[in-house]
Amino acid sequence: MRLIVGVDLGGTSIVVGTIPEDGSTVYGPQMRPTPSAQGPDAVVDRIVHLIHRSLDATRTQLRTDTLDVAGVGIGSPGPLDTETGVVILTPNLGWRNFPLRDRVTAAVGLPATLDNDANCATFGEWWRGAARGANHVVGITIGTGVGGGLVRDGAIYHGASDVAGEIGHMTVDMTGRQCKCGNYGCLEAYASGPAIAARAAEELLAGARTSLGEYVAGDLSKLTAQVVYEAASDGDELALDVVKDTAKFLGVGIANVVNLLNPEIVVVAGGVTLAGDRLFQPLRAEVKRRAFRPAVDACRIVPGELPGMAGVYGAVAVFKQVTWGHV
Amino acid sequence: MRLIVGVDLGGTSIVVGTIPEDGSTVYGPQMRPTPSAQGPDAVVDRIVHLIHRSLDATRTQLRTDTLDVAGVGIGSPGPLDTETGVVILTPNLGWRNFPLRDRVTAAVGLPATLDNDANCATFGEWWRGAARGANHVVGITIGTGVGGGLVRDGAIYHGASDVAGEIGHMTVDMTGRQCKCGNYGCLEAYASGPAIAARAAEELLAGARTSLGEYVAGDLSKLTAQVVYEAASDGDELALDVVKDTAKFLGVGIANVVNLLNPEIVVVAGGVTLAGDRLFQPLRAEVKRRAFRPAVDACRIVPGELPGMAGVYGAVAVFKQVTWGHV
Repeated sequence: MRLIVGVDLGGTSIVVGTIPEDGSTVYGPQMRPTPSAQGPDAVVDRIVHLIHRSLDATRTQLRTDTLDVAGVGIGSPGPLDTETGVVILTPNLGWRNFPLRDRVTAAVGLPATLDNDANCATFGEWWRGAARGANHVVGITIGTGVGGGLVRDGAIYHGASDVAGEIGHMTVDMTGRQCKCGNYGCLEAYASGPAIAARAAEELLAGARTSLGEYVAGDLSKLTAQVVYEAASDGDELALDVVKDTAKFLGVGIANVVNLLNPEIVVVAGGVTLAGDRLFQPLRAEVKRRAFRPAVDACRIVPGELPGMAGVYGAVAVFKQVTWGHV
Repeated sequence: MRLIVGVDLGGTSIVVGTIPEDGSTVYGPQMRPTPSAQGPDAVVDRIVHLIHRSLDATRTQLRTDTLDVAGVGIGSPGPLDTETGVVILTPNLGWRNFPLRDRVTAAVGLPATLDNDANCATFGEWWRGAARGANHVVGITIGTGVGGGLVRDGAIYHGASDVAGEIGHMTVDMTGRQCKCGNYGCLEAYASGPAIAARAAEELLAGARTSLGEYVAGDLSKLTAQVVYEAASDGDELALDVVKDTAKFLGVGIANVVNLLNPEIVVVAGGVTLAGDRLFQPLRAEVKRRAFRPAVDACRIVPGELPGMAGVYGAVAVFKQVTWGHV
């Protein structure tokens, strides 16, 4: 069986895995920090290194010296040009017009494809995860930012200039919190990992009853969204409130998407899903309160099923579709 | 050439016209109030009457006794089921599960199709109006409500249960004005015709400098959105402010759609477009301020080019597509 290497390049880490064309498993998964401060060449070097490591581990695991590797699928922050394989701009990495796809191809001697990271994560969930078999899929990824992807009839919906799916900067409260993009009231200003941590820290400093301080030994700079999820699942009241508010903000954004696109399924991925039903119950309630009834009835809202690996699966699925015309 | 009759059923009026399959003109246009208080039978009777009148006028205009009429395309408020031709629910008309398509077919002896009114208006603008030739189209219609439609690659995007495109109840200000749907901060609560009139009346009562009172001879119940547009184009300050605020609210909603769908064109239709550049300049500025740059750069925001007739054109285009597989 042919193999494809999937690369999920993020602002903080790079995840790589080797996947057979039937998507049945991931061989040789690798994960390392993104050396973003060292510039694009260092990032390409690390990607190439991780591809080789993943293929080596795959050879070991399959007990063979020869692998049939068709190519490399890459998911990257954008905006980017899927045709030319060029990353146009990534604020987190500081790149402009960087020919990522061709640089990887030149270094490993394999054909490659490039698509947006959030598109890949959604496509991965459609191919092998929570959205298998669905024709109208919306994916939302909560991390450093809030990303989104749209999959319709088995293909990523790219829009007119390859940037469709930008859910994070949807205005949900036009007079609300300032976002790092400069505008007011973006979903990302409330529901991203850093926004979740910031809201918890504000409440803690304002004197809310909480054991959150103990989780970080009094050092608020260590208060991340992950810590909030942990404390919430331990029953901390403030953490639970923050998760509930996050659910409300996400619910408003998802209700808008549900009204507009009438999807069968919305897959929510990222650390926030660790909060489980504490997140999903109030989130579904908010969507039900705000969205059109026939659209709500048609739509499941579920956590992703490929934590940490959706982007790798999706990058491989993009490679298959671009190269062979099918996934 | 074959003819198709287009029917645009609205909460306040019914518009009917007969269109040759090449979409080159509208013969025998008809417009009458919707007798909604008299129930669905009376509405069907009036639709049928207007179809016959339109065909009579077409015969006269073409100086012929025989017309080759292929069928009837109907646009109606929804939600509705495009497969079965049943209107599931229309709050404005008070209908539930009404088989509108088959009732019209039975009465006029012609095959018919049914789709959502806002979908039809958008599809009409794509076929013969402002969005000709575009592959990624969003339509927004400002009237009693705020409706929306999506057209991609020459077909209406219906979503999973035929209700995609519901732009009016997008939350733009989650702690804002209550909408008649019960929620807070829907776009429709700010930008629909009645909302525009209500905002003007509130300001007038609060003592704002304006000549709006003179337009309605002191009778505020006559202060409609149309009156506001008229006064704005005459230079009335309050009316201009209301139009500018409307532009801002619409701009937030359109920015969200532009971020999510990355369309080539957004067509804004309805009476509000009478305000011309006084509306469109601040609207485009708000979208530019809020949406992702590559998405803004790819997108034109323009007024509709088929005022009052977009729905009729679109209903005919739906008939062609459903019946013959092409528009």
